[in-house]
Amino acid sequence: MQRSFVEKSPSGWEGVEREGYVPGEKTAVVRHTLIGHKKAAATDPGPSSEVRYFDVPPGAVTRLEKHEHEHFVIVGEGIGYAIVGDDVREIRQHDIVYVAPWEPHQFINRGDAHFGFFCMVPACRDIPQLLSADELAHLKATPAGPYADPDGAPPPRIRESLGAR
Amino acid sequence: MQRSFVEKSPSGWEGVEREGYVPGEKTAVVRHTLIGHKKAAATDPGPSSEVRYFDVPPGAVTRLEKHEHEHFVIVGEGIGYAIVGDDVREIRQHDIVYVAPWEPHQFINRGDAHFGFFCMVPACRDIPQLLSADELAHLKATPAGPYADPDGAPPPRIRESLGAR
Repeated sequence: MQRSFVEKSPSGWEGVEREGYVPGEKTAVVRHTLIGHKKAAATDPGPSSEVRYFDVPPGAVTRLEKHEHEHFVIVGEGIGYAIVGDDVREIRQHDIVYVAPWEPHQFINRGDAHFGFFCMVPACRDIPQLLSADELAHLKATPAGPYADPDGAPPPRIRESLGAR
Repeated sequence: MQRSFVEKSPSGWEGVEREGYVPGEKTAVVRHTLIGHKKAAATDPGPSSEVRYFDVPPGAVTRLEKHEHEHFVIVGEGIGYAIVGDDVREIRQHDIVYVAPWEPHQFINRGDAHFGFFCMVPACRDIPQLLSADELAHLKATPAGPYADPDGAPPPRIRESLGAR
């Protein structure tokens, strides 16, 4: 049963586990699942979307990836770079980022302080994919290229397709 | 075409109009539509969800309402109260509120500073409804009752059903 209220605490949110970026696995990026959970079918019980917060420490990045589902992102704290398609921007608190279907994207902390963002996705969604060699070569030749780090975060895991939270 | 980046500015967001709570109508609550727009059909072009920010000045409230679609809320600034169902909580920056289908809800600023929150909804959604007299009587007898203000914000407008942005 989804709680109506999830209260911010100094280190995260009350009652929300600090997970690895890939759930169950320790990585630099910390994930807080605030509302909802991954669903195998849209008609399964539970919220239709999932709200997560990703805390990206200095030097860390999220995965450079693409997928059919959209991302609705609100920066929570700190300063980072966001790559979306061929574009890159410096982003900071309460800037908004929209990632359309299949747009390659990555979030990067290159500052000295923590950088974190809220990210809303459908509860029922496809598994992220890495970029192909051709897509990566294309990206590298764009303004976003120098910022992209295809090896900075773990690849998608097949077990995510089993609907594991 | 939805922009990938929507940058925060001192008074709102770059390139985003400050609208009335009911679009086109001047009200105390200011609405910023940050990503997406209302769609008549889920298959229409554009983002599948809409991300809005509601700025609630001191003394103001959002509408006490109910609807089938869900709300995914992240507090942006200030201190407010959120009524969800029979419950009420004080909420502040980066607290999270989930409103399940048909749960009556209202957001209230009773402080001296601006209170604002991000609210994500499906782009294709039903029209909000006011509570019935019975539902209002029930709510008034709960812990949330003393906080509820059924007359504090304009009622839903039929023209929203026409898919107006």
